[in-house]
Amino acid sequence: MSVKRDITLVEVGPRDGLQNEAQPISTADKIAFIDRLSQTGLPVVEITAFVSPKWVPQMADAVEVAAGITRNPGVRYSALVPNLKGLERALAAGVTEVAIFAAASETFSHKNINSSIEASLELYREVTREALAGGLAVRAYLSTAFGCPFEGTVPIARVVSLTKRLLELGVFEVAVSDTIGVAHPGQVRAVLSALRVEVPTERVALHFHDTRGMATANVLAALDYGIRTFDASAGGLGGCPYAPGATGNLATEDLLYLVNGLGYQSGVDLDAVADASTAIELAVGHALPSRYLMARRASTIG
Amino acid sequence: MSVKRDITLVEVGPRDGLQNEAQPISTADKIAFIDRLSQTGLPVVEITAFVSPKWVPQMADAVEVAAGITRNPGVRYSALVPNLKGLERALAAGVTEVAIFAAASETFSHKNINSSIEASLELYREVTREALAGGLAVRAYLSTAFGCPFEGTVPIARVVSLTKRLLELGVFEVAVSDTIGVAHPGQVRAVLSALRVEVPTERVALHFHDTRGMATANVLAALDYGIRTFDASAGGLGGCPYAPGATGNLATEDLLYLVNGLGYQSGVDLDAVADASTAIELAVGHALPSRYLMARRASTIG
Repeated sequence: MSVKRDITLVEVGPRDGLQNEAQPISTADKIAFIDRLSQTGLPVVEITAFVSPKWVPQMADAVEVAAGITRNPGVRYSALVPNLKGLERALAAGVTEVAIFAAASETFSHKNINSSIEASLELYREVTREALAGGLAVRAYLSTAFGCPFEGTVPIARVVSLTKRLLELGVFEVAVSDTIGVAHPGQVRAVLSALRVEVPTERVALHFHDTRGMATANVLAALDYGIRTFDASAGGLGGCPYAPGATGNLATEDLLYLVNGLGYQSGVDLDAVADASTAIELAVGHALPSRYLMARRASTIG
Repeated sequence: MSVKRDITLVEVGPRDGLQNEAQPISTADKIAFIDRLSQTGLPVVEITAFVSPKWVPQMADAVEVAAGITRNPGVRYSALVPNLKGLERALAAGVTEVAIFAAASETFSHKNINSSIEASLELYREVTREALAGGLAVRAYLSTAFGCPFEGTVPIARVVSLTKRLLELGVFEVAVSDTIGVAHPGQVRAVLSALRVEVPTERVALHFHDTRGMATANVLAALDYGIRTFDASAGGLGGCPYAPGATGNLATEDLLYLVNGLGYQSGVDLDAVADASTAIELAVGHALPSRYLMARRASTIG
């Protein structure tokens, strides 16, 4: 319960990871996955998204997942909510925190949540107020902060301004997110140099994808700027379903191997996470891309 | 010809990469691969190993490969030589430099080259003298410098001492090598902190494998210590043949994405390397693990 940590891992595999899986995953498999992850020492697990099943069919069982898991009092359970209706469902389901998701690119905002950035911030102002009133902590994602698949480069000034505005809504933390995995350490340094002038470092988390092999290098760069909260996905769940082997989120295992080697105390058991990943691999029906997990598998075979 | 570079990539795909492929690769495919790589701006390509085909069947055609390639005057062509006989063949084949390979672990040395570390250094003293006399530059690998599959931890003092002794033989550079991909940035910092006291930084290259997802992070850590020469393998060739998806060498593409983002001038065209990797993929018969290459493939499909 009272683990000493100097770095915080936010596990997003059950939500950001599984929502990108083409194959439906059963509710029971999701619950078993979350319950395993809850026993690894992870302090936060994002378990689902209270979004319309029309948008994200994989998250249609959000209520059942939230109701079915065995709560570990040492773990914060979070869920994504896109609007007041989602928040209502999340409150009823008994999560301890919710996450809202804004974009740093106008085109991505329209394509992802069918709203301008400004309109989304207005909506999130209400969602945050209601969530706080309901006793929930609120986190924000700022997606496409390092690049947009439609617009390309995203100005750093916009990332800084939107991070500030999200914090002003009352969220405790903004996960500045490299949604498409284009960020490199040079860019991480540039963004964090600008951010730290305007925003307290402890309010910034980073969310990387390993699409171009930069995720652990980006974390290393961010650690030098004092960032201590990182999102990660067990096994590297979240790869693009139509590109076998293409990778999504930074793998929790790879992040742990990095921070363990640097002497940080995360409170998380690396091999327990790898066991959880190995179990969910069977359910998703393909090998997960975490390098650490692959190496562990290879050493078991060889 | 007179490219301005502030970082040097040593391409080891045709040797360290291909020698780990279970499937035989035809001599023509190897030659085409090297010729493509020679047109990408890479300053050094390690093309083959003059070792006994009993040890490494994949390198049995070393003489034919060296004779068959089209030499680009802007490229240094290197080959591995284990002994005087190998050197003789390399001299006859007209390479411009050779590489010797010592180990930092006694057990690995015995298993890999059937010799104690001390005996191998004695042998390499002769090989280096003869190579220099023959007008060849000599490079050294120091394998298992960050960990040994048999002995585990390798003392940093031994890595420093062996690096010094290899340089004293007359080699121009030692590639301090993480043969099994266990190194993390914390260890890279520790090793380089010790090395730089005893050895000029410009005589040290680093050779990483991405087995646990640390390769680009390790390079980032090493750049902060002034290291400017890194080995890499096109496409990440060099994966363990019995573990599909398990990765070997740091991919040249991923390294280039990193150093380009940091503003270094390597003189190498990233997409030209990716084209060479894509061509050799057909010959090796499986997808290569470079993250950048996967992302490029995915964006072509999607």
